[in-house]
Amino acid sequence: MLNFDMHLPTRIIFGKDTQKEIGSLIKPYTKKALLHYGGNSIKKSGLYNQVVSSLKENNIEFVELGGVVPNPRLSMAEEGAELCKKEGVDLILAVGGGSVIDSAKAIAIGACNDDIWKFYEEGGEIKAALPVATILTIPAAGSESSPHTVITNEEKQIKKGYGSNYLKPVISIVNPELFFTLPKNQIANGVADMMSHIFERYFTNTTDTDLTDGLCETTLKTIMKNALIVSQNPENYDAWCQVGFGGTIAHNDILGLGRAQDWACHDMEHELSAIYDIAHGAGLAILTPAWMQYVYKTNINMFVQFAVNVMGVEGSYRAPDAIVTEGISRLREFYKKMGLPATLTEIGIEESKFELMAKKATGEAYGKEHSIGGLKKLNWQDVQEIYKLAK
Amino acid sequence: MLNFDMHLPTRIIFGKDTQKEIGSLIKPYTKKALLHYGGNSIKKSGLYNQVVSSLKENNIEFVELGGVVPNPRLSMAEEGAELCKKEGVDLILAVGGGSVIDSAKAIAIGACNDDIWKFYEEGGEIKAALPVATILTIPAAGSESSPHTVITNEEKQIKKGYGSNYLKPVISIVNPELFFTLPKNQIANGVADMMSHIFERYFTNTTDTDLTDGLCETTLKTIMKNALIVSQNPENYDAWCQVGFGGTIAHNDILGLGRAQDWACHDMEHELSAIYDIAHGAGLAILTPAWMQYVYKTNINMFVQFAVNVMGVEGSYRAPDAIVTEGISRLREFYKKMGLPATLTEIGIEESKFELMAKKATGEAYGKEHSIGGLKKLNWQDVQEIYKLAK
Repeated sequence: MLNFDMHLPTRIIFGKDTQKEIGSLIKPYTKKALLHYGGNSIKKSGLYNQVVSSLKENNIEFVELGGVVPNPRLSMAEEGAELCKKEGVDLILAVGGGSVIDSAKAIAIGACNDDIWKFYEEGGEIKAALPVATILTIPAAGSESSPHTVITNEEKQIKKGYGSNYLKPVISIVNPELFFTLPKNQIANGVADMMSHIFERYFTNTTDTDLTDGLCETTLKTIMKNALIVSQNPENYDAWCQVGFGGTIAHNDILGLGRAQDWACHDMEHELSAIYDIAHGAGLAILTPAWMQYVYKTNINMFVQFAVNVMGVEGSYRAPDAIVTEGISRLREFYKKMGLPATLTEIGIEESKFELMAKKATGEAYGKEHSIGGLKKLNWQDVQEIYKLAK
Repeated sequence: MLNFDMHLPTRIIFGKDTQKEIGSLIKPYTKKALLHYGGNSIKKSGLYNQVVSSLKENNIEFVELGGVVPNPRLSMAEEGAELCKKEGVDLILAVGGGSVIDSAKAIAIGACNDDIWKFYEEGGEIKAALPVATILTIPAAGSESSPHTVITNEEKQIKKGYGSNYLKPVISIVNPELFFTLPKNQIANGVADMMSHIFERYFTNTTDTDLTDGLCETTLKTIMKNALIVSQNPENYDAWCQVGFGGTIAHNDILGLGRAQDWACHDMEHELSAIYDIAHGAGLAILTPAWMQYVYKTNINMFVQFAVNVMGVEGSYRAPDAIVTEGISRLREFYKKMGLPATLTEIGIEESKFELMAKKATGEAYGKEHSIGGLKKLNWQDVQEIYKLAK
């Protein structure tokens, strides 16, 4: 096991009616907030009014910026940062899913730094950001307690992630009742995303990781079991509790402590959703089994463990390839039951694009070639092969 | 599942050589620290010198208070609090196991409040405490990231716990290499304590808790598997990583989120170690199987789940009592392999004391009778029966 530094400062307020407490919860941090959200759904559902009432009851001034879209745009983050500076905003309250929260984090950077995109493009440490609080409406990205944000630069057609401890939200409200109205495809995309956050940490060459192995495996199994329930019965509160809490645990990094991590699937997926504007989760559901198929021989015992402990495969350990293949097959079957796409063709991405996508995913296209992935290091030719397996 | 409020602000720095960073890690919090520790073992091992060097390198002044004993005493906490006030100390650095850390927390209360014992005796909220940092030398109590502290009032012969968010350490160093020199009985006591922290959360009547059920079960299994390894090979770093990290996870409350908790075994055990000065873990190992035997019919399915998922019992679910009995028997067997005592008689506690102990555990002896336990509420007669089962 590797050394690690665990710091989970985000306070998670979980359960029924908790969104009504938002005003009193953020009051210690703010006099004037930016209320940031996506489309009209939070107005239709009544959530918007609940939030506004709670802010007013607690004498918290606020300005608004709505209209965040999936794969959130740099241009809106820049607009939000300007607004914060002009209005003297001291906290961003994100009400929405991962896109809204990621956009809020980009605004939080921009309000305290000159250039937002520079950090996504070049890395480097921010020295300050406004505090972010969240009310989660889609369990998926784990952004409600992670240090991460992903933004799309629409001019350059590049989707990039950035992370900093300054971007861990101070408070996040997770009320599974707010998930009851999600459409089936959004549930599926969210589940595929949170599962991938675990896979990226789980598949590792680091040895002697019993505890986090077990934590990853039980969280994956719980999410999968309960995802099938909420997909059929989206108003099942208790099943949503498991999925919702699972999505937070999946990405607050407890499950990845002391392990070398992978993240190749996320890197490969960003090329899909940056250009084609498909859902991140759908892209991950397509790529993950193909990635497993391509890399498993690098560490076959890790994949046998996955097949047995997570996918419940039984069989002869003298035929480990068969166990792994069955495990991958069951994972595909699960994604299919959730209604997720299985191939790049289905979502309209043609083979002629694969080479450029692979070169962009590995930086080759920008003259900054680097391998991606931890378990097996992948160059652009490897990535192209994986796209082909996912064709 | 119940609503919950999760807040884990303690930064855990885990792994090899991490204790050498203590000075730079606590520097943002302190100009003058109280270095608090137990006996001479940290001087013999060289840890004391490493800590002092790191403090000096970072120009952190410090005063010292050593000599904390197991089941730490109120009188020393009072002495420490006076010292902090006199010397203008602004942080307590606890170097030791749970006793030292619990004592440090009591000092942290006393440095900012008039009366320490009042809070342990009567509850009530503290409004301030000095920050506590820790270097853990015995994995057991989980005090390195919990809000809890347990102190013995030696005049009154009462052991009492207290908890507050102000008492969650700001930083804790967990380096499994520091555990290599622990004697076998101390390893066993620590393991029994951390297992009990999970049992107290795991055994519940709250339903629909798939995720935390699974997290509890895998953490228990990992601790038990690796505890047997370190008990035989106390210099096995990787096995210690699982036990050490497991002990932290066991008590930072992730495993108990959204669940009604029990804590009867801890309440019953405090009567043992307050008076007889036996190790807390040894007392828990004696009482836990007896408690299980006494209460399991209240929620037999919960105990079947324990026997099957944690203790690996297979058998006919049409004979659930047999499954539970086998699960409890395997737990006793595990404690025995670890070298822990199995009966109150073995540790010199006679049956004639049981009634008074039971009346003290339930407050009856002080005219403040209350039931203890969550899964099954126990009055003093119930507690007496459990002591008899543990005879």
